[in-house]
Amino acid sequence: MAHHVKDMIRTHPSTTRFDQDALEACIHACFDCAQTCTACADACLAEEMVAELRRCIRLNLDCADVCEVTGRILSRWGEEGIQTSVLEACRQACRLCAEECERHAEMHEHCRVCAEACRECEEACDRLLAA
Amino acid sequence: MAHHVKDMIRTHPSTTRFDQDALEACIHACFDCAQTCTACADACLAEEMVAELRRCIRLNLDCADVCEVTGRILSRWGEEGIQTSVLEACRQACRLCAEECERHAEMHEHCRVCAEACRECEEACDRLLAA
Amino acid sequence: MAHHVKDMIRTHPSTTRFDQDALEACIHACFDCAQTCTACADACLAEEMVAELRRCIRLNLDCADVCEVTGRILSRWGEEGIQTSVLEACRQACRLCAEECERHAEMHEHCRVCAEACRECEEACDRLLAA
Amino acid sequence: MAHHVKDMIRTHPSTTRFDQDALEACIHACFDCAQTCTACADACLAEEMVAELRRCIRLNLDCADVCEVTGRILSRWGEEGIQTSVLEACRQACRLCAEECERHAEMHEHCRVCAEACRECEEACDRLLAA
Repeated sequence: MAHHVKDMIRTHPSTTRFDQDALEACIHACFDCAQTCTACADACLAEEMVAELRRCIRLNLDCADVCEVTGRILSRWGEEGIQTSVLEACRQACRLCAEECERHAEMHEHCRVCAEACRECEEACDRLLAA
Repeated sequence: MAHHVKDMIRTHPSTTRFDQDALEACIHACFDCAQTCTACADACLAEEMVAELRRCIRLNLDCADVCEVTGRILSRWGEEGIQTSVLEACRQACRLCAEECERHAEMHEHCRVCAEACRECEEACDRLLAA
Repeated sequence: MAHHVKDMIRTHPSTTRFDQDALEACIHACFDCAQTCTACADACLAEEMVAELRRCIRLNLDCADVCEVTGRILSRWGEEGIQTSVLEACRQACRLCAEECERHAEMHEHCRVCAEACRECEEACDRLLAA
Repeated sequence: MAHHVKDMIRTHPSTTRFDQDALEACIHACFDCAQTCTACADACLAEEMVAELRRCIRLNLDCADVCEVTGRILSRWGEEGIQTSVLEACRQACRLCAEECERHAEMHEHCRVCAEACRECEEACDRLLAA
């Protein structure tokens, strides 16, 4: 399955303020985490014990929305201030969602996978903010 | 034209940490600003002098995305930390987009209207963060 | 609370293929319904009987997503083919979500309000497709 | 770079009506195309000849929105009717955007890459609708 993130960075007529590899990894992780969190909310909803997964579902939905918008905003080469504050919101949403999913990772494998995607995205935001 | 923001706050089975009027105003302003910025980007794109409106279009698109996700996240009664950081990102995007649109408000009426929507949303975020 | 949909249609440098009033009503209904469905999913999630509201929550989330993207695409004056097929998907999502919400409108007032928003959006899409 | 689409399908407590490989490929292609189109709109905006790329930018933005919502809706295991109509809208948006990007693929490499992502997504929607 092909990905085009790297090629789109390479062929943009402007130059990015970010390290290209860190930017590529972060855009990728944002869209990956948005998908994973959307799917995890749906999987939680299908569990018998859905009533105990309310906080997880809410965090999944919030995290999916924040990751998606962060992926979009990093795909546009706009204002540094907006990118930084969105990256900070994304890192925080990923951390909170990962912590919650990790709590029932042993019982629900989709939460284990989702926690992994959240941690990868948290770290990718971290690296881009540090770069 | 009916709006349902107030009714949805009133009928939610939980209670919100926010002042209900400030929350209603902010959710409303976020969706309104998302629409206005999306339309302003398209109007700018249709202007003869589109080449001089690049920064405005990018800010419109970024601001629309941030406002929309803020409106969604405020419509869910989730984590305070995520709501605060998203509100801060939204306030900033609205301020930057308003400043840019105000620069050509005399030449392009859609930018004048958009700047107004951005300022209203910036203030609504401000009030919700202060409350 | 001010709205800017009408002003943004009026100040766009191009002319729309749609009837302006029907377009304004539909864009407005799409964003209103996106907000209402997002809030209804969250309210359902907070109900004691959440396990019986799974289908409603899923429809709320799907409908919110489709309405939002329809509102965005109608705010850009692009391809007729894309606008038509998105309007058809939106009308269908609103109808299905309204039908489900109406089933428990007596028990959950947020579902009654949400069904109303969905029906308004369904009709607004209908009118725009017919115009 | 890890992807979690397959794992999220595998660990969902319900079974999907779709062929699992076709579903995985389509979800993946939708998010990939949403990213690529968002980036292509921004790259077109940065070109000197932006005035000649208006239609391309609009199609990029519409296609990004439709692909993203299709990826989200396929990540939830909801109503067949909604999934089918969204897939049809997505296939059409991808085809139109690919046709436009192909027109200036020789001049702008980002349009060549974007056309490729759109064609992959169009075919993935096709296969899922046919399955």
